[in-house]
This record gives sequence, C-alpha cells and structure tokens, in this order.
Amino acid sequence: MNDTIQVFNNHAMGVVTQEQIDALCPAAKEAVQTLEQGTGEGSDFLGWLHLPSGIDEATLASIESCARQLRTDCDYVVAIGIGGSYLGAKAVIEALNDAFAAYKPAAGAKVLFAGNNIGEDYIHDLMDLLDGKRFGIVVISKSGTTTEPAIAFRLLKEMLERQQGKEFAARHTVAITDAARGALRSLATEEGYQTYVIPDNVGGRFSVLTPVGLLPIAVAGFDIRALVAGAVEMERAGDDLTIRYAATRNALYRAGKKIEILVNFDPRLHFLAEWWKQLYGESEGKDHLGIFPASVDFTTDLHSMGQWIQDGERTIFETVLSVGDQKHSVVIPSDAADLDGLNYIAGRRVDEVNKMAELGTRLAHVDGGVPNLLITIPALTERYLGQLIYFFERACGISGYVLGVNPFNQPGVEAYKKNMFALLNKPGYEAQSAAIQARLKG
Amino acid sequence: MNDTIQVFNNHAMGVVTQEQIDALCPAAKEAVQTLEQGTGEGSDFLGWLHLPSGIDEATLASIESCARQLRTDCDYVVAIGIGGSYLGAKAVIEALNDAFAAYKPAAGAKVLFAGNNIGEDYIHDLMDLLDGKRFGIVVISKSGTTTEPAIAFRLLKEMLERQQGKEFAARHTVAITDAARGALRSLATEEGYQTYVIPDNVGGRFSVLTPVGLLPIAVAGFDIRALVAGAVEMERAGDDLTIRYAATRNALYRAGKKIEILVNFDPRLHFLAEWWKQLYGESEGKDHLGIFPASVDFTTDLHSMGQWIQDGERTIFETVLSVGDQKHSVVIPSDAADLDGLNYIAGRRVDEVNKMAELGTRLAHVDGGVPNLLITIPALTERYLGQLIYFFERACGISGYVLGVNPFNQPGVEAYKKNMFALLNKPGYEAQSAAIQARLKG
Repeated sequence: MNDTIQVFNNHAMGVVTQEQIDALCPAAKEAVQTLEQGTGEGSDFLGWLHLPSGIDEATLASIESCARQLRTDCDYVVAIGIGGSYLGAKAVIEALNDAFAAYKPAAGAKVLFAGNNIGEDYIHDLMDLLDGKRFGIVVISKSGTTTEPAIAFRLLKEMLERQQGKEFAARHTVAITDAARGALRSLATEEGYQTYVIPDNVGGRFSVLTPVGLLPIAVAGFDIRALVAGAVEMERAGDDLTIRYAATRNALYRAGKKIEILVNFDPRLHFLAEWWKQLYGESEGKDHLGIFPASVDFTTDLHSMGQWIQDGERTIFETVLSVGDQKHSVVIPSDAADLDGLNYIAGRRVDEVNKMAELGTRLAHVDGGVPNLLITIPALTERYLGQLIYFFERACGISGYVLGVNPFNQPGVEAYKKNMFALLNKPGYEAQSAAIQARLKG
Repeated sequence: MNDTIQVFNNHAMGVVTQEQIDALCPAAKEAVQTLEQGTGEGSDFLGWLHLPSGIDEATLASIESCARQLRTDCDYVVAIGIGGSYLGAKAVIEALNDAFAAYKPAAGAKVLFAGNNIGEDYIHDLMDLLDGKRFGIVVISKSGTTTEPAIAFRLLKEMLERQQGKEFAARHTVAITDAARGALRSLATEEGYQTYVIPDNVGGRFSVLTPVGLLPIAVAGFDIRALVAGAVEMERAGDDLTIRYAATRNALYRAGKKIEILVNFDPRLHFLAEWWKQLYGESEGKDHLGIFPASVDFTTDLHSMGQWIQDGERTIFETVLSVGDQKHSVVIPSDAADLDGLNYIAGRRVDEVNKMAELGTRLAHVDGGVPNLLITIPALTERYLGQLIYFFERACGISGYVLGVNPFNQPGVEAYKKNMFALLNKPGYEAQSAAIQARLKG
C-alpha cells in the first residue's frame, strides 16, 4: 500500500478532456510560483505555506505539556472559537475519535466546543453539563472581541471562577490569540493565562496546524507530531497532487460543473468536509465566482441526496475521500435461516462491503453524468490527516489563483456583523442603527 | 405570538416579482387537487397525505406502551434504519433533545442509530459501547433485505441474544416492516417480536409520522401525540403556506436560482435540514431537473459558507428556519473591565443577540443578491415540529408537480446498489458481475 494520499482524476474524463486539464497546468504551476514567491494577491497571508516544516520542537513540547495538564486535571476542556478557530480541531478530533466517545468513559478530559454559535439553549445545556465538573477552557480568538466566542467565554470564565476558584481557573484557561495586541492578549496578561500565538500571516481557515488546532487536538489525546509530520511530507512532495486537483476542478468548473460535492464513505469524515467547505468556500466564493462546496456522508446520503446526484441537474461533480484501512475488524456473521439473504457476504469484513458500495457508486455516478475525483487516504491516522490537510490548503491557494480571485481574504464575512451591530445598537454604529431601523419601518 | 408556523416570501421580491409567483399559483392549486384526488403520477404513494388525522388512538397507545417498556428496561435502544427510516426520527430527537444529552445521565434509554452507513469502525465502536449494557433494538426496513440495516441487525441481534439471552432479546426487539411480506416480517413472526407496519402507500421520506418515526421518538421520551396534533393542524389549514412556499421556490428556480440553502440559527435543527434534503432531493432531483438542496447552521457557518453566500455565484436562495422561544434563559454578564467590549449587550439574553444576527444576516444576504424565504417556528416543541414536518411534506408534493416530475418515486437510488451487488458477486447478479469486472479490467 502506498504511504501517502493519492489523487486520481480519470473519472473526470468524458466531461473534460486531459487536454482541457493540461491547458490549466501552466496557470497552476504559475500559481505555485506566485505562492512560493509571495507575489500574488493576499500574500500577507501566506504564513501557512511553510508552517509545517517551520514548527519548532519547543512549541510542540510546550503544547503537549499544556495539553497533558488539562487532560489530567479536567473532566472537560471547552474549546471556544468559531470558523477556523473551531473547524480544524473539530475535524481532526472527529476523524480520529471513537464514533461513540461521547457516551464512554475517557482516559482524559473530553474536548467540547462552544462559541461557534449563539444558541441560548446550547450554552445553557453546556453549562448544565459543566455544573460541578472540573473543566478547563481553551479560548481562541485573534482579537478577543468576535461576538460568538466572546459571549461564550464571558459566561464560562465566570462559571469556572465561581465553581473552582480564581486560581484553578487561571491555571486551566489557555488563550490562543494575537502575539501583542487585542482584548484577549490584554486579559491573558492580566489573569496570568498560558498563551499561544496565532501568527499574523495565517488566516483562520489555514490555522489548524498552528496552536489553534494543535492544542485542542493534543488535549483530545492525539499525536500532533505525527499530524505535523504528515503535513511536512505534503509540503515537500505535494506539487503533483495539488496541481492535479486544482487544475481538474477548475476545468470542471469551466465545463459548467458548478457544485463540488465532497464525498466520504466514513461518517468520521463529516467534519473534515465542514472544514473543507470553509477552506474552499471562503477562498473562492467571491467576485460572483466560485464552485459551490457541498458534502455528503455515504452510504447514509445515498438514501437521501443519492437520487438528486444520480438524476438531477448535471451541474455537479464529486470528490471522493476513500479511506484504506479501518482500525477494527468486524466480520458479518452467517445465519442458518438466511432470511435477509446476506449469507453471500457472511465471513467478509463490513469494510469490504463498504468498499464495493464506494466503487459501485463512483461508477454509477459517472454513468449518470457526474464526474468524480478520487483522493485515497491510507487510513484515518494523524499522519495521513496531516497530509490531507496540507494538500487541501496548498491546492486551495493554487486553485484560487487559477480561478482569478484573491484566495486569502474574506470581505463578505463582515456584512452580517455590521447589520447585527447596528441592530444591537453597538457604540460606534449609531448612524447604521438609525439607517437600519428606518429601513425596517419603511 | 402566533401559534402556528408562518411562511414569508417578501425577501424573495426583486429577484422574482409577486406576479411571477402568482403566475405559478394556479399550477400549485391544481397540484393540491391532483394530490387530494390522487390523479397524478406516483399516486400509489399518497398515504402520507391524510396520515396525521388518520392515526388511531390504539396505535398511539400501543407505541407509547412499547416505548415505555424499552425506555425502562434498557440503557440504550438502537434504531436500525437508513434514509427515511433514520432521518425523521433523528431530526425530531435532535431538535427536542438537550444539546449535550450524550454526555449526561438519562431518565430512560438513550436512542442510538445504526444501519445507516457501512462504517466498520462505526459498528465496532457501537458494539464496544453496548458490551455489557442492556439494550434494545428497533429495526426498520420494509423488506428486511436492505444491505446497510440488514448487516447492522445481524450483528446486533446476535450480540443481544448472546449477551442478554434469547428471551430478553425477543422481548426487546421491535420490527417495523411490511404488513405481510418480506424477510423482516417472516423473522418477526418466527421470533415473536412486537411489530408495527410501514404502510404500502407511504414512501420512506414521508414516513416520520408512522411508527417508523414515532416509536424511536417516543423511546427518546418525547410526546408523539403533540407531534401528530401539530401535523393535523397543518393538514387542515396548511394550504396557504404550502402553496406560497411551493410557488415561490419554483419561481426562484425558473429565475436561475439553482440551489436552495436551508438555514437555521439553532444547531438543534441540523438534522431537520438533513431530513429536508432527502425529502426534496429525492422528490425533485430527477429528469435532469430540480433545485439542489443544501443546508447551513448559522452563525457557525457564517464563518465558513458565509463568504460564498454573500459574494459567490448568484445562483442561490435561502429558506431560513427562525425559532421563536428558547427553552432556557441565559443572560450575558457584565464585566467591570469590559476588555472584550461586550458590555453594550450585558444584561440581555443570548437569544436576543442571535435574533439580531439572524435579521442582520437576512438583510445582508438580500443586499448581496441572495433572496430568502422565512419560516417562523414559535418554539422547538413537538407540536410545532409536527406542523413543520407536515408543511414540508405537503409543500414537497405540490412543488414536485409544479416542477413537472413524479415527486414520489426514486429510480436513481437503485443504481449504486446494482453495481455493489455485482461487485460483491451476489447470487442473481452473475451477468452484471462479469460485465463490471470486465469494465474494471478494460
């Protein structure tokens, strides 16, 4: 078995030709140069490019030590953050975790997430769970003033101090924030929190391999050195794969395939797809351009979105994440009566059936007019997830430049915030408040 | 406050006109007649239409009594099913449950789901959890031979019998299946399982208000009478709302809005959107037609898909699910230092901020060229969920007829299964096996 992820585009042919893909390769290679030389739009945010190989031993050791203490001392550790300060850690932890970990006793603290929504019952139900428990907080925010995490942190900080005392709270709260500026940096200094830095030149959606992702992943008990090592491998040898993915998806987009569906056949990859949606959606969805990123969990959603994919508008393509080895073996038992007719697969592993469902689906969708790309992942381990993460990041930068946008800004994210602040009468928004109130009356 | 769900389409104007929507109303009203008279395509599958008002007292009482026994005797009850035999119950239970229920002790059995995927580690991790626990099984399959649930049921049936004995297993396994035919019906008769019927004329995606959905929902401790009562209210008085939704979304589709994003601002509605995707995707995604159903959880995904929605291709519209009341009150505390600058909202409920985020987002997206429909739900209770479910079902039938497809078949779902059976050398698929092997070598 190959020991890196692989990318195949042969099932894209027919809808696009190898020539159409090849025609985009010069632009993709130029994009690589633009990234490496930092000469393109958004080049202030290229800190992720050589981040994996640049992480030093002291940082890794510090994160591991900090994580160990939180894991040992706490029943729960709440990671507070939104967007890239939530999705990367969530994606990796879910991919590596026991599918029913929430229901089982654990060897160390369980990682929970907050500050990624404004659900009042959600924060209530979380605080109800934490009542009487020893918990810690990892609060992740560049500014410390983003509304969602700031609300959650105010509530949980107060609760933790009340419940466990100021000293325990200070020793079990970690702030991941700007190196020098901002509300959270000031508070951390004042309270004596341990801190880690979000580099200035790394945008949120590219931050999973900084302490933003690494600390919660380490608290959950996973091997961040292997994760980083996998990313380094792709940093050094990923150009063929990233160019193939970026060129093929742009060729498909030009051929009228407007929606890319990231497909998994393993429910643990659900949040990897959510992370991918932010990465590609925020990077490419601008200037009234961009592939619409969607995702499905198969075979679950073959009994849901499967009909649309097979027979709906022919404006979609799929990128299939195919996992090689499972961690455990479960064999289908034989049954004397065989009423369900499954004896033909008795004695075989469940995963063998899943693999045939996967191959059968890819063929059926190609036949139905849905091209697909295939990304093979040898197994769901830290190392291969590290490869996959860096692969997607690098391919995203390339793909965005081929599309002709700045892949590193996200101007549209501010629009709802401005309206929200105006509606909440935030100081400084007086003119906008008056305007929006007039609009609502009008 | 209004005591039913409401539907507003004023934020769709500009992209479509009231005249364009009105022009589709005759077709929508005709579709209502076609449904009521059973004269359209797929009319063999209209059992859902007057299902809520037709559920009798004896059935409800029996389901409640069966659920009570499972709840009392078991630590976990595993609902085995895929597609409509999974998503309806999952959607309602998640909408009503404590957001952190998995982590908390419960008054009765916790409901888990299996047979909705072929993940080997997933079933392993589940069996590891059930090891040594008292558990029950609700197995849901019309035929009893659908691959995913059949594999899960073989494994869990054997485990339960081994662990708790044949007698406990038989008394704590419930089969929901065809009234007379099929493998699961035969097995249930042989083993003496309690059974409930999936009516012949109700398709999977319309089955949540049959025992398919009602039993797992009751096992989870929720009020199925209120759920049904809400559905009855919509069955009797939903025509205005369903026609408005069906006509508006078809008008938007004709105006080039190819993707409908179902939006919530409450993470508990995540699986309601998954249920909705099956309902609309399977009903409309055929004949190379149909709106692509997608979903987002806001404000979480405003920091992910938000950028694309604000500034990407202008081929999308949103349908926003707006929940009125929360169950609990959480007030944002004041802070003397106010480093995070949140004191301007101190003393206000978290949900007030969420409501302003919601309104601010709707305005920002309209300004960005994304029309939206608004569905208001007074609160996440059984009754209002019953209204919402029946509303979406009825509107789906209408919308499919307006689109010009048969909303009640799903021919495309078979395509992957045929390939999978051929690849697994299932008896009866010898010719297909030879053909697919030749193709893979070719």
